[in-house]
Amino acid sequence: KVKEGRKLGQEDPRRVVHSLKVGLALTLVSTLFYFYPIYINFGFDAIWAVMTVVLVFEFSVGATLGKGLNRGMATLLAGGLGIGAHYLANLSGHTGEPILLVFLVFLQATISTFLRFFPKIKARYDYGMLIFIMTFSMITVSGFREDQILELAHKRLSTVSIGAAACVIVSIVVFPVWAGEDLHNLIVLNIEKLGNSLEGFGDEYFKRTWGEESKDDKKFLEGYESVLNSENSEESLANFAAWEPGHGRFPFRHPWKLYLKVGTLARECAYRIEALNGCLNADIQASSEVGSIIQEACTNLSIESGKALKELALAIKIMVPPSSADSHIENAKSAAKKIKSLLKSGIWEDIDLLKVIPGVTVASILIDVVTCTEKISESIYELASNAQFKSVEPTLSPKKLHSGQNQSIKSAQLVNCPDVGINVRELTLPSPPSENSSAPKASKQRMEV
Amino acid sequence: KVKEGRKLGQEDPRRVVHSLKVGLALTLVSTLFYFYPIYINFGFDAIWAVMTVVLVFEFSVGATLGKGLNRGMATLLAGGLGIGAHYLANLSGHTGEPILLVFLVFLQATISTFLRFFPKIKARYDYGMLIFIMTFSMITVSGFREDQILELAHKRLSTVSIGAAACVIVSIVVFPVWAGEDLHNLIVLNIEKLGNSLEGFGDEYFKRTWGEESKDDKKFLEGYESVLNSENSEESLANFAAWEPGHGRFPFRHPWKLYLKVGTLARECAYRIEALNGCLNADIQASSEVGSIIQEACTNLSIESGKALKELALAIKIMVPPSSADSHIENAKSAAKKIKSLLKSGIWEDIDLLKVIPGVTVASILIDVVTCTEKISESIYELASNAQFKSVEPTLSPKKLHSGQNQSIKSAQLVNCPDVGINVRELTLPSPPSENSSAPKASKQRMEV
Repeated sequence: KVKEGRKLGQEDPRRVVHSLKVGLALTLVSTLFYFYPIYINFGFDAIWAVMTVVLVFEFSVGATLGKGLNRGMATLLAGGLGIGAHYLANLSGHTGEPILLVFLVFLQATISTFLRFFPKIKARYDYGMLIFIMTFSMITVSGFREDQILELAHKRLSTVSIGAAACVIVSIVVFPVWAGEDLHNLIVLNIEKLGNSLEGFGDEYFKRTWGEESKDDKKFLEGYESVLNSENSEESLANFAAWEPGHGRFPFRHPWKLYLKVGTLARECAYRIEALNGCLNADIQASSEVGSIIQEACTNLSIESGKALKELALAIKIMVPPSSADSHIENAKSAAKKIKSLLKSGIWEDIDLLKVIPGVTVASILIDVVTCTEKISESIYELASNAQFKSVEPTLSPKKLHSGQNQSIKSAQLVNCPDVGINVRELTLPSPPSENSSAPKASKQRMEV
Repeated sequence: KVKEGRKLGQEDPRRVVHSLKVGLALTLVSTLFYFYPIYINFGFDAIWAVMTVVLVFEFSVGATLGKGLNRGMATLLAGGLGIGAHYLANLSGHTGEPILLVFLVFLQATISTFLRFFPKIKARYDYGMLIFIMTFSMITVSGFREDQILELAHKRLSTVSIGAAACVIVSIVVFPVWAGEDLHNLIVLNIEKLGNSLEGFGDEYFKRTWGEESKDDKKFLEGYESVLNSENSEESLANFAAWEPGHGRFPFRHPWKLYLKVGTLARECAYRIEALNGCLNADIQASSEVGSIIQEACTNLSIESGKALKELALAIKIMVPPSSADSHIENAKSAAKKIKSLLKSGIWEDIDLLKVIPGVTVASILIDVVTCTEKISESIYELASNAQFKSVEPTLSPKKLHSGQNQSIKSAQLVNCPDVGINVRELTLPSPPSENSSAPKASKQRMEV
């Protein structure tokens, strides 16, 4: 257990920080409860503030803000309606009052619970609906016995506000975790992983064709796997991000929905890479005769589309239009054309078709991958124009212009592309996944940018 | 909005029932609050019962039981520890007491919040941890001012228990929704969908090869899509099901984990079908020369593995070992063998390779699908032996033996298989997806069984 805990903490140190932040917020609210006259005003109701902190404080600022606003709004609305219901019931006499109140509780609970099934409401207002049902029921029911119903509503709202405010303040001030930034980084990381898997694939596949067993760590080839399952986290991050104010490089109405679109296309590409990986581990491998014919073009294609994806990831990361990937995509497309013409040519006639299939399957999936890469690039262009990626550059402070961020831009646009272009055109034998290009280095800078 | 609501209700009428159940449970608890002496004992604390109902009542019995048990246990544990902390602080004098208490609140909140990141705890005890933090903080903090801390703890536990009991009773007694049964049905439905998509695929693909545009509704071909994304619902249903007592045909320790295994293999198969669907909608289709060579074997393979999957789904549904699928799997395997030998033969030499590729790709994915189907069958055999599917039959009541359930068994084992077997062996031209077999009819019975 302790080992597992240490691992969890090392994987993402923000988990430890988050735990301390919850402790801090709770301590703040408890201290208020002890030492300040608040206690005298709110009495035992101050525990609502404690409750609010525990229930509202979430990992990211967006989730906390969303829950806090949901809770505040729902409490306000339910309080108002509860008071209304109370007065309405008062008019209907001693016998009618309890019956009417119970009926109202039943009615609103049923309707509100049903509303929670609406997908749009579930995504953003689920917690609010819950609090609405709870507050309305409590005020309506308790109102029957106590006459200070207005005071109760006022107290509940005040204590909830104090608790929610403590959460939001601690969440934003102490090492804030922004859901929007997380979404941005997740998309970048996912596309980068696809790029790495793809870049290494061609080389690895034909090594196996020639019967070589490479001893290097092949972990990077499986990087795509986490992309297959990231749909849910992407969607919830986008939902949370919508609650967040502007932060860092992201203005208030940053087009988070477009990140989801890029993510979906990336997942489609990941499915293709999954299929390629299936070929890599299949029982029947391409024969060496076939290998020698398609190896060059396939390796080119996989390296070029891998590089394109990595450039696309870099473009999102440093928030520039993804033009640096265009040349790689062009190269990948011409490699795809070459594969198609090779397949058309007559050189296959002497080869047993069953031996041809594995290689041809790989080739046709690779051609598909190029299409996917193009689609991803288009969606990133759309994101770039919607989020006005270009206008970000001039607003950089002079200091930043001379630091890492600008170097990445330079290396991506000036140094990297021509280099790699030449590299690839000279390529006649599979080379190790381009350790001389700056893209892998840039990927290590991810956390700093 | 009203239209959307009606659609939601029609899609799953249990949503409407659930909403009414929440209203009912809340009404019950509110009524207690009004009319019974409980109010005199618990005073304002009775609102905890209302709160518990709102927060604990979930869609399925398992989720409700899980949350209720979590809440009860956490309240008990936190109450005990809170009282302990209170007495410990009492010993440390007037200056030390508040500091120690606040420190304890901070410590437990930090540790408990961190524990919530452990995947196993998150899956089953997340709500309990939340309630633990809340109750402990509230008791510790409120204890400073009130001396009747034991009474407070006692009241809170009693009211929470009343609320939780109301939820559990209403949830189980009034049209219960069992997560376990839902998981069972979801897996059955998913495999059935795969079967339908696959069964229709071969026919559809070669129709397009011959340039025919079929006008029928092709919705069933896309049934597999929902399978791709069902991992999360399967996992949460399995988690909820673990809380449930025995119900209907499922005993208490039914091997729900094995359903997840079947589900994962089904998803792998769905990825293959996604790839097949990609071929169906690709720009380049198999040429008619190629089609004429592989059509028969491929159509056979897709129909047979489709039928196998549907038999497998039926076997899970009526809880018998999936032996009725064996013959279909054998047929599919021999079709796969035939495809392989066709690909090996020399009849391809005169055909342009580029025209061969689309057909060959489809063929090799189909061969893959057979492997997937076999794996699914194996996992269902494992499920059948672990869940003792065979022993279910004799325990059926005589009345049930003469009703629909037994008929399904009969139709599956006696009528359906031989029929279909002959059907397929006679098959020389693609036939419409076997509307004469009893499997589709059986699938319509799903909600009744």
